[in-house]
Amino acid sequence: MLYLVGLGLGDAADITVKGLQVVRKCSRVYLEAYTSMLTVGKEALEEFYGKELTLAERDLVEQEADEILKDAKETDVAFLVVGDPFGATTHSDLLLRAVRAGIPYQVVHNASIMNAVGCCGLQLYNFGETVSVVFWTESWRPESFYDKILQNKAAGLHTLCLLDLKVKEQSLENLMRGKKIYEPPRFMSVSQAATQLLEIVRRRRERGDDPGLTEDTLCVGVARLGASDQEMRTATLAQMSSCDLGAPLHSLVIAGRLHPLEVDMLRLHARGDALTHLDRECAAAPECD
Amino acid sequence: MLYLVGLGLGDAADITVKGLQVVRKCSRVYLEAYTSMLTVGKEALEEFYGKELTLAERDLVEQEADEILKDAKETDVAFLVVGDPFGATTHSDLLLRAVRAGIPYQVVHNASIMNAVGCCGLQLYNFGETVSVVFWTESWRPESFYDKILQNKAAGLHTLCLLDLKVKEQSLENLMRGKKIYEPPRFMSVSQAATQLLEIVRRRRERGDDPGLTEDTLCVGVARLGASDQEMRTATLAQMSSCDLGAPLHSLVIAGRLHPLEVDMLRLHARGDALTHLDRECAAAPECD
Repeated sequence: MLYLVGLGLGDAADITVKGLQVVRKCSRVYLEAYTSMLTVGKEALEEFYGKELTLAERDLVEQEADEILKDAKETDVAFLVVGDPFGATTHSDLLLRAVRAGIPYQVVHNASIMNAVGCCGLQLYNFGETVSVVFWTESWRPESFYDKILQNKAAGLHTLCLLDLKVKEQSLENLMRGKKIYEPPRFMSVSQAATQLLEIVRRRRERGDDPGLTEDTLCVGVARLGASDQEMRTATLAQMSSCDLGAPLHSLVIAGRLHPLEVDMLRLHARGDALTHLDRECAAAPECD
Repeated sequence: MLYLVGLGLGDAADITVKGLQVVRKCSRVYLEAYTSMLTVGKEALEEFYGKELTLAERDLVEQEADEILKDAKETDVAFLVVGDPFGATTHSDLLLRAVRAGIPYQVVHNASIMNAVGCCGLQLYNFGETVSVVFWTESWRPESFYDKILQNKAAGLHTLCLLDLKVKEQSLENLMRGKKIYEPPRFMSVSQAATQLLEIVRRRRERGDDPGLTEDTLCVGVARLGASDQEMRTATLAQMSSCDLGAPLHSLVIAGRLHPLEVDMLRLHARGDALTHLDRECAAAPECD
């Protein structure tokens, strides 16, 4: 049996009781280590689970899936994923390979950023399409995510922005030379994301276009969601661009049309300009208390 | 301290280790019992948690929140919610009341339908706005959810349809007479939801409008997600309208534009007409294997 087990978002204790039972009975346990991360490392998980873990890096999962699935018809193998197992396409790929090899599978779900972000106070059913904000390079500065935010906003919907992370990436030079030397990991912060968004606002204004978003657009930054040192901040984009929420992972939500209850929730984590704007939103909504 | 604890989706063992630690140390534990349900009842949870639970019905949470929060400054109180705690607005309301009363709070997240639905094989970041399909009555047959599905579909996005449930509802007659007599619980099935959708298709065709969806629109029905007897079915709307996935809860996903990997995942649970349509989708996508 192949078990795909979600680990949730915070630390070792965020695994479900069902998930822990699975981990403890499996003969091999892989920890997926490139699409996300917990606030604790492999060693802390091994101690908590009472089980040795094999780090499954991108290479292993995408190129050597057969090794992970080896003899999984006869023995139990677990593949652990931060958040929920269906957060990334590579995990669907692993599942399909298992099915084709006649290996039965079972999924143990858990919280992921896609639903836990509701704790920021914005209602999940008022979210539109989720977008990914990627690290820009000198020559590659895509804006497609920005247009999706505008589409959501036009429909009154909030947008969850997943922020880029680079783990075990090679520089172009090392990649071309075939050298397995990896760059230090990088995680996009809410301030970096807000800065990129404001750069697009500026660019579109210079072109004479209505940028749709402004320095005053309300957003919510979330850091280390579900961990004991979780941080949350309601801010304008301008405020967010200089906001330090500490260690990764960060996520950013761009607010759409606000319901009075959402305004009240956002107030819990707002300061300065953001509060002024929330008061204005509230004044515009007659049913607001 | 007020703890809002998500229970996940399947049975008692879907609580997280952190959540179980919280439940065991609290002096009062409430189980929210009107926005969703697990496949096991209160007694099974009490036995698994080793703790007595108080059922919190809609009346209690909305009208007597003060009773739930009573002395929560000095003692630990847990409020258990199926799925993740931020699935329903009433839980935000409870949290805001706690904050106003100076009661600290903590959230223990878990899987909810909003993220676990990814197991149907459709990628979560290709979902648009979530909609609720409500039970129609003789005189009230709203179609607003249908237009949101069309908007999502036009943008190539999938739509998660949350299906109505009626727990401890009074008939209009008993409500008006002030009689606390409750109707038997009702849970919308995927076949009922598909039937309502097809009714709208028919109505719009009769008006001479393009209904946007057809009998052949691909959808995925999910029943008892996360439980050991979970059922999943890829079907056309026509197939789904006569598909029996058994006991509640059910959810329905209307597919948008399909990625080849999504087609492969949907095939795992498809039969007959749905397979033909998936093959056609695949033929139209040159990168499909």
